[in-house]
Amino acid sequence: MSVFGTNPRPIRAVIYGVGEMGSIVTRLLLDRGVEIVGAIGRSETKVGRDLGIVAGIERPLGVTVEANAKAVLGRDADIAVVCVGSYLETMLPHFMTCLEAGVNVVTIEEETVFPWTSAPEQAEMLDAAAKAHGVTLAASGAQDVFWLNLVTTLMGASHRIERVVGRSVWNVDDYGPEVANHLRIGMPRAEFEDYVAESGWPEFVARQTLEAMVARLGLTVERVTSTVSPIVLDTPIACRALGKDVPPDALIGTVDTTVLTTAEGPTFEFSMEGRIHREGETDSNKWQVFGEPDLHLRNDRVPTRFITCSTVVNRIPDVIDAPPGLMSLDKLGPPGYQHEMTTR
Amino acid sequence: MSVFGTNPRPIRAVIYGVGEMGSIVTRLLLDRGVEIVGAIGRSETKVGRDLGIVAGIERPLGVTVEANAKAVLGRDADIAVVCVGSYLETMLPHFMTCLEAGVNVVTIEEETVFPWTSAPEQAEMLDAAAKAHGVTLAASGAQDVFWLNLVTTLMGASHRIERVVGRSVWNVDDYGPEVANHLRIGMPRAEFEDYVAESGWPEFVARQTLEAMVARLGLTVERVTSTVSPIVLDTPIACRALGKDVPPDALIGTVDTTVLTTAEGPTFEFSMEGRIHREGETDSNKWQVFGEPDLHLRNDRVPTRFITCSTVVNRIPDVIDAPPGLMSLDKLGPPGYQHEMTTR
Repeated sequence: MSVFGTNPRPIRAVIYGVGEMGSIVTRLLLDRGVEIVGAIGRSETKVGRDLGIVAGIERPLGVTVEANAKAVLGRDADIAVVCVGSYLETMLPHFMTCLEAGVNVVTIEEETVFPWTSAPEQAEMLDAAAKAHGVTLAASGAQDVFWLNLVTTLMGASHRIERVVGRSVWNVDDYGPEVANHLRIGMPRAEFEDYVAESGWPEFVARQTLEAMVARLGLTVERVTSTVSPIVLDTPIACRALGKDVPPDALIGTVDTTVLTTAEGPTFEFSMEGRIHREGETDSNKWQVFGEPDLHLRNDRVPTRFITCSTVVNRIPDVIDAPPGLMSLDKLGPPGYQHEMTTR
Repeated sequence: MSVFGTNPRPIRAVIYGVGEMGSIVTRLLLDRGVEIVGAIGRSETKVGRDLGIVAGIERPLGVTVEANAKAVLGRDADIAVVCVGSYLETMLPHFMTCLEAGVNVVTIEEETVFPWTSAPEQAEMLDAAAKAHGVTLAASGAQDVFWLNLVTTLMGASHRIERVVGRSVWNVDDYGPEVANHLRIGMPRAEFEDYVAESGWPEFVARQTLEAMVARLGLTVERVTSTVSPIVLDTPIACRALGKDVPPDALIGTVDTTVLTTAEGPTFEFSMEGRIHREGETDSNKWQVFGEPDLHLRNDRVPTRFITCSTVVNRIPDVIDAPPGLMSLDKLGPPGYQHEMTTR
């Protein structure tokens, strides 16, 4: 919802979740002149302490991390920047608390990019709550710039699209042991294959980005399938995140691939390769649009964690300005650098 | 201007200029189901002949190339696709004829991308005429996707921008002898340097793209400077466009560089390298955004001529829908693939 006023004024934000990402966001907001009017956390080690100290800014900000979200959200904030979890199911109550307090939400939670098919009931509930309170909920992050909007912009040069293929590579070692263990880093290949065959493997969050892409293009989803495959080396490699070596033929990462077919014909594939980088390797993002003509796009040296936070911060004025409701990424305009981080 | 109707219907277009680019556009429009209601040309070898034959489609389309633009534009067209020249001065009367006939214009003419500072009087005149007749004039082409919108989208991940540097490489041999001679291909390096020192060198069309970029970012242009430098090899190379070899130390191309500084600090540089490609070299587009963080974007194997035409075609529904006036590229939304080429 647009915030009307005689003059633009600094945006007032609440940090909702003061983990690693929330801490980066805190620093970025301060740099950009956003007024931080509150911080919400739940860990005993954080609640009651100054946000500046918790977020590693090394100076007090006069903002105390509090556990009572409702009280914090009542302080006339324009927006809550929510950095808590990756799936909508766990995030639903947090989002509802913000929306019911009449506060816009921008989040790095990845399912909200396009939740209409993977979590339709939650999506409808959030959309209704946002509309009822005249505010907007939207997700952003790496996928906003690197997986969706760079690609749809590139397709502005397409005459005919047959197949869109993306591949994003990120370094498992940039994250903690939790992420490395989640990807089964170090597990022998055969054991991993048995595990997946027996227990399945969670669908990863590319689905939402591909669905947002197809919605933006005005095409109709026919089928979505996901697969996972292990990445192994024939020599040992050190894993920083786990603090140990991974032996040959054990997992140094996984490739998650999602394939989406459309009723109109074009297919969309996206592979996410999370792996231990070898010396000199960097995070990258690569897209190919096959058709007439073939088009190619590549980003190297992508600082994935940082740009997740900086993209969310740039989205703040867009989300404040957007119509009320759950704005999946297909509905938001293009991301861009915000020179003025004020109300419009 | 939006074309209102009960149902979307095919767009009705006029081809204005049936040279090489207009011919490609003709084929693309037919593929996309656009109704071609007229074609305007001036060459004696084209006027009076069927557009399909003139454009190399190899079948008659029942549309005759005519010299009387006014008469053709009177046939209830939604849009004229104008592929005639590269500078606004020569294009002004053609654009005015379209606008005064109440027909929207999309063009590959490059100055119209952002003509407000390089041709302010013509820009104001065209803007006024478009508004008076309730139609829109806009330019598109390679710069729309590859030089402007991919880069502004990438900057959606920027926290702080210090310097933006772009480089686009294109093959002189993909064009005719006119273009090769314009770039002084084959001229000895010393002679070229003397020539530029004495006669100067025309500012190339990157200026407009950089100005559109800076306008989109909300920054203020301080100074724009352009330079040209020769490209030479130490071995001979065949020039297809001229049908002869270029000796060592003679021009195989030029690098045109435009540097734009802003009052707010960030600088913007764009170099356009037009050269004879060696075996295996392809057209490319590369941008680097230096700041926090550094961001990188690269497109290889860019079919520059084709995507100039396909991008303009994808822009047709946007231009028909846009508010009346001269819409420089900073004001148009992001380019995208148009699955339905109908009125909206």
